[in-house]
Amino acid sequence: MPRKQLNIGMIGYGFMGRAHSNAWRKVGNFFDLDYQPVLKAVAARNRDKAAAFADQWGYERVETDWRKLIEAKDIDAIDICVPNDLHAEIAIAAAKAGKMVLCEKPLARNAREGEKMVAAVEKAGVPNTVWYNYRRVPAVSLIRQVVASGKLGKIYHYRSLFLQDWTISPDVPQGGAGTWRLDIEAAGSGVTGDLLAHCIDAAIWINGSITDLTAMTETFVKKRKHALTGKMQDVGIDDAAAVLCHFANGSLGTFESTRYARGHKALFTLEINGQHGSLAWDLHDLNRVSWFDHRIEGTMRGWTSILVTDGDHPYLGKWWVPGLSIGYEHSFIHQVADFIEGLSTGKSAGPTFRDALETTRVCDAIIASAKKGKWVPAQ
Amino acid sequence: MPRKQLNIGMIGYGFMGRAHSNAWRKVGNFFDLDYQPVLKAVAARNRDKAAAFADQWGYERVETDWRKLIEAKDIDAIDICVPNDLHAEIAIAAAKAGKMVLCEKPLARNAREGEKMVAAVEKAGVPNTVWYNYRRVPAVSLIRQVVASGKLGKIYHYRSLFLQDWTISPDVPQGGAGTWRLDIEAAGSGVTGDLLAHCIDAAIWINGSITDLTAMTETFVKKRKHALTGKMQDVGIDDAAAVLCHFANGSLGTFESTRYARGHKALFTLEINGQHGSLAWDLHDLNRVSWFDHRIEGTMRGWTSILVTDGDHPYLGKWWVPGLSIGYEHSFIHQVADFIEGLSTGKSAGPTFRDALETTRVCDAIIASAKKGKWVPAQ
Amino acid sequence: MPRKQLNIGMIGYGFMGRAHSNAWRKVGNFFDLDYQPVLKAVAARNRDKAAAFADQWGYERVETDWRKLIEAKDIDAIDICVPNDLHAEIAIAAAKAGKMVLCEKPLARNAREGEKMVAAVEKAGVPNTVWYNYRRVPAVSLIRQVVASGKLGKIYHYRSLFLQDWTISPDVPQGGAGTWRLDIEAAGSGVTGDLLAHCIDAAIWINGSITDLTAMTETFVKKRKHALTGKMQDVGIDDAAAVLCHFANGSLGTFESTRYARGHKALFTLEINGQHGSLAWDLHDLNRVSWFDHRIEGTMRGWTSILVTDGDHPYLGKWWVPGLSIGYEHSFIHQVADFIEGLSTGKSAGPTFRDALETTRVCDAIIASAKKGKWVPAQ
Amino acid sequence: MPRKQLNIGMIGYGFMGRAHSNAWRKVGNFFDLDYQPVLKAVAARNRDKAAAFADQWGYERVETDWRKLIEAKDIDAIDICVPNDLHAEIAIAAAKAGKMVLCEKPLARNAREGEKMVAAVEKAGVPNTVWYNYRRVPAVSLIRQVVASGKLGKIYHYRSLFLQDWTISPDVPQGGAGTWRLDIEAAGSGVTGDLLAHCIDAAIWINGSITDLTAMTETFVKKRKHALTGKMQDVGIDDAAAVLCHFANGSLGTFESTRYARGHKALFTLEINGQHGSLAWDLHDLNRVSWFDHRIEGTMRGWTSILVTDGDHPYLGKWWVPGLSIGYEHSFIHQVADFIEGLSTGKSAGPTFRDALETTRVCDAIIASAKKGKWVPAQ
Repeated sequence: MPRKQLNIGMIGYGFMGRAHSNAWRKVGNFFDLDYQPVLKAVAARNRDKAAAFADQWGYERVETDWRKLIEAKDIDAIDICVPNDLHAEIAIAAAKAGKMVLCEKPLARNAREGEKMVAAVEKAGVPNTVWYNYRRVPAVSLIRQVVASGKLGKIYHYRSLFLQDWTISPDVPQGGAGTWRLDIEAAGSGVTGDLLAHCIDAAIWINGSITDLTAMTETFVKKRKHALTGKMQDVGIDDAAAVLCHFANGSLGTFESTRYARGHKALFTLEINGQHGSLAWDLHDLNRVSWFDHRIEGTMRGWTSILVTDGDHPYLGKWWVPGLSIGYEHSFIHQVADFIEGLSTGKSAGPTFRDALETTRVCDAIIASAKKGKWVPAQ
Repeated sequence: MPRKQLNIGMIGYGFMGRAHSNAWRKVGNFFDLDYQPVLKAVAARNRDKAAAFADQWGYERVETDWRKLIEAKDIDAIDICVPNDLHAEIAIAAAKAGKMVLCEKPLARNAREGEKMVAAVEKAGVPNTVWYNYRRVPAVSLIRQVVASGKLGKIYHYRSLFLQDWTISPDVPQGGAGTWRLDIEAAGSGVTGDLLAHCIDAAIWINGSITDLTAMTETFVKKRKHALTGKMQDVGIDDAAAVLCHFANGSLGTFESTRYARGHKALFTLEINGQHGSLAWDLHDLNRVSWFDHRIEGTMRGWTSILVTDGDHPYLGKWWVPGLSIGYEHSFIHQVADFIEGLSTGKSAGPTFRDALETTRVCDAIIASAKKGKWVPAQ
Repeated sequence: MPRKQLNIGMIGYGFMGRAHSNAWRKVGNFFDLDYQPVLKAVAARNRDKAAAFADQWGYERVETDWRKLIEAKDIDAIDICVPNDLHAEIAIAAAKAGKMVLCEKPLARNAREGEKMVAAVEKAGVPNTVWYNYRRVPAVSLIRQVVASGKLGKIYHYRSLFLQDWTISPDVPQGGAGTWRLDIEAAGSGVTGDLLAHCIDAAIWINGSITDLTAMTETFVKKRKHALTGKMQDVGIDDAAAVLCHFANGSLGTFESTRYARGHKALFTLEINGQHGSLAWDLHDLNRVSWFDHRIEGTMRGWTSILVTDGDHPYLGKWWVPGLSIGYEHSFIHQVADFIEGLSTGKSAGPTFRDALETTRVCDAIIASAKKGKWVPAQ
Repeated sequence: MPRKQLNIGMIGYGFMGRAHSNAWRKVGNFFDLDYQPVLKAVAARNRDKAAAFADQWGYERVETDWRKLIEAKDIDAIDICVPNDLHAEIAIAAAKAGKMVLCEKPLARNAREGEKMVAAVEKAGVPNTVWYNYRRVPAVSLIRQVVASGKLGKIYHYRSLFLQDWTISPDVPQGGAGTWRLDIEAAGSGVTGDLLAHCIDAAIWINGSITDLTAMTETFVKKRKHALTGKMQDVGIDDAAAVLCHFANGSLGTFESTRYARGHKALFTLEINGQHGSLAWDLHDLNRVSWFDHRIEGTMRGWTSILVTDGDHPYLGKWWVPGLSIGYEHSFIHQVADFIEGLSTGKSAGPTFRDALETTRVCDAIIASAKKGKWVPAQ
């Protein structure tokens, strides 16, 4: 049976534009799906760069105004790969136009924006998702399955870090192409929305809702040159953030993220401790799960390093053979596969805009708590 | 030149009594010191058990009242290895009698008790130390040396965990011989004084004072049978504690300890991130330091696992040859060696009672912050 | 400037057919090359399966006789992804027809076949390569660069393993689709040609030629059912092989491969020890290199785990950002990129058929030595 | 019940003299045994050094002629800690005098010497052992227990390395105090008797006898100054050795040892692969066993890192609490404990001289095979 076309309109061509384009192009080679993505158009203000991108990835046409994509009859889904300050406007417009919407994370700069986005997609009834791609790293999916199965029993602890080291130099500018994540206007927040948001999304997915929290943030470099204005300006973002919290299930959570942890490029870690066992993972060895099973005979107990490459591990049956690993980009391919599967079943695999809004609310609470120096509700 | 005798009076014969006795007995075989410890007497209420202990370790005599040791003319140093609620009374009496005092950690159940102890030893002018033994794990000593040398530049982050899993079962009692650490009366606090105190001591030693903090504690099992009374009683201790804090040098700290992290027996970890490099260590692989040096040529950079067994590593010149490891007990031998060295030089290697009081104040602040739900000063 | 087309004719659609097709399709999205591969045709005896494969990967047409591809005017390069017993016939025919030839490893069942293949491609003057893909794992490429730079000084040792565990059960058949590697007729040898060949290719590439060797092989399961005939037949392949050898540079080599090492899926390891340093790698953590640099200050020396994901690491500038890993399949993409680069420069990046013949000769020597129980020359 | 005295006469005061003395002194503090070792006398040619050693370790008297110890009425056991060329003479004399004999490994420079030693102790009927201490690393003992229990099923592979890097510089002399191991006269062989012997002893203990083997040895530095004569002399020892072999149980073995593997201080590794599981260990992380259990549910399978510090692990009940590690020296304490236990039960825990002779025969076969370039019987 021939597959139906799913026509994609991509907005943005940066790092995420590449990661998503790769996912759209590749998914059909590995997954049997009812829809085949077709790269219809890419929109970006710089026509030359957009054209080069289109050429490299096979987009059929280029637009310099994203609104053209939203108006286009031949486009089914809008994929938003631009800085956070544009998420709301584009997503809402796309929803109103009846397009499916796939939005890079975080959903928005804050919950206020996010709420409008949720309202828009739900009112329009369009399929929607936010690219919290790390859920679809097979090892993370496996952890979620094991926790959901109840194998761990009562949960006591959840801890998660996201450590980087790329902004230690005061010479890194804020704003502009590669560094808009340091600009409070474009990003909404610093590591909280950029890195902690991944930790929080995974935590809620695996361990349920967070009820209340207290946080500390820090801006180590107080002024940076703005890449667009060329002026030294106050840095408005958080360079580092740390959080203590309670989950609704009674467990305790600790979270930390920073761009000042020398030696860590993208060390996203998570660990969950329950009555009967524990599970841990980190992004630098993304195909491994560490697993402690207390029910094993005492003398042979220990932490097992599961190499998540077998055919019966999540998503792995679609790839190679045991022992042969996949990488970062595959998490996006899996998200596309699940999104398309959701179109067939009518049941979104998540995270929907609504799911992602919960994460953004937690992020807002972190920033607010750090400002006030107080415990605050997480929602 | 023959060594002078250093006559030891040991109070207590539990796990720590063994660890200390081993250190006293063994130090002279490996370190060249002016004093040779002699195991003069052990005191404990149960005469039979104390006698068996004396027999096994070579103590010359046994007392059932610790005051006998303090009155004894032939004893130079009192080694306190009993539950925390007896530390203050014994230490103060020993100091008044002009004895050197070595006290198991934490210094006391709280800073109020600790202040009296500090006053007593300082008034008496007697050599004193608290057994925060992990400072003398060679890998930890190496980390302190490297940080003190300035190699890391400005410090941004310090994080430390102490994770165990031995009290998850509600059938573990509180109070009594092996479980007094769960009894608020005997212990003063739960994981905070028992485990976090080690993290805090090392953190202050390596990274300087803590200024303010916010904390969360939890008691997962609310009632436990008391081993002595046989009755179910409310549990007064903290089963888990987590802390966010600032150091005086401007770096951020995060700490966590628990006895509910399934799979971790005694996982004491620490990591420090500075401008030019990072260092990390954990007690489960206690002879290794992880080291990231940003000044190495880019393509060859990474985390180096230093096997701390070479002759020029701290303390290792006294032991075997490169590649051959030492263990937990050696940290005590090193503390004894440094203590005795301090007798010769007149300069205590620390931690003195005063040093340890700073840690106890931080512990008090943790408990207070958790109770109030607020940031508090750390001292 | 528009890219020229490079029209591919694929023979076979198995595991390797997928890995190669993925490489052809994807290379242009990430690498700037003069040629754009086009998937023209796939040939396989089973038309339905071939058609399904063509549909999934976008091949324009299907043939049931591979000769049709060789005769086709519109095909530039023949990619051979069939069992070893067909390599020689197809490759020689392709060369004669003036096609470029890319042949799955090992080159052939034995050196006799391989020599004819080398003669054919060299006589025809067609670009040719053998898919020893692991050379293009960035970590392996980095090791080769470092060794070639002389940083290690004189080399003393090279050791390499390839351990699997998938044929332990006597119920695994020989012959047929997934198990032709156990059939001596189809495969030519067992682990020697399948697994050790990878070890040998990398060893020669990194450390130079092997001069002489002694080997031991074993067939643990003596009879297996043949998947095609249904009959129990003697197993002709080697289940395990181990080798001692000398390299031309005076260093010693040890090699081992097996499909009976429980717990190892595809554990290809290599380590090289030189005067000033050592390097090691394994396929289960393929983005990491272990590196020991003896010239580092003594107390801070150790094995460094380099996460090979930075922009200045081999090939990585084409992919994501530091810390984000690539996987197994990327080694094929890199080989395609280098092959195409070779078309532009006229200089093959290797391994050519001639390079691969050296590996096959070593494999032949291993089998011969094991049979005779003697040291033999490696060429 | 008071313990009986076991009076020790120590011959030698080097590195091994210290390791053994520590074991004799300490065993009684941790193990409940019928005999208490007493350090009666130490013999060595240099009276001053011997006296200093006696002072540090508490030996009651010093002799400059080892024969005095053998004649002494008050000595029960002779502990031989001198270079290999003196083992036979001393051991035979001690046995004739009716003393128990504990001899450092290897038993002798070759099997010829060893056979006489075995004959002597067996004729005299005296308790005897050879200090293959690594058997008593708890992790190694655990591996032996698990293999002996049959949990692994049929064994396919055993591989073991012992890698060092301390003789790479040609300036290291041969002969004399710290470097007699490089002198063929004193040592009998190089890495084969010094390092491989440990690998072989453990292999035979865990996996049974070796039947036949082929080997390669190398001497990288051909001439070294002799520390005693001051002259450059040919180096007679093997700097590196590698072995392929068969075990009597049908499994394949590979062994390698060298002092030219930069970055490895004392990396003794072993791994055994069986039908249902695999076990691995290395000396640099000596408290851990890696364990793969194929009978675990598929998706949760992996290599488990067992931290061998629990009370029910071999020997660990005598030491600290879970998570707290012991070190290299404890292997000697355990051997002393088992030796003394053997005195009570009348059943030697091994390795006896006879057990150790089997290892020496394998070592002889390795040297012979390397010389001849042929497979040879291992016994």
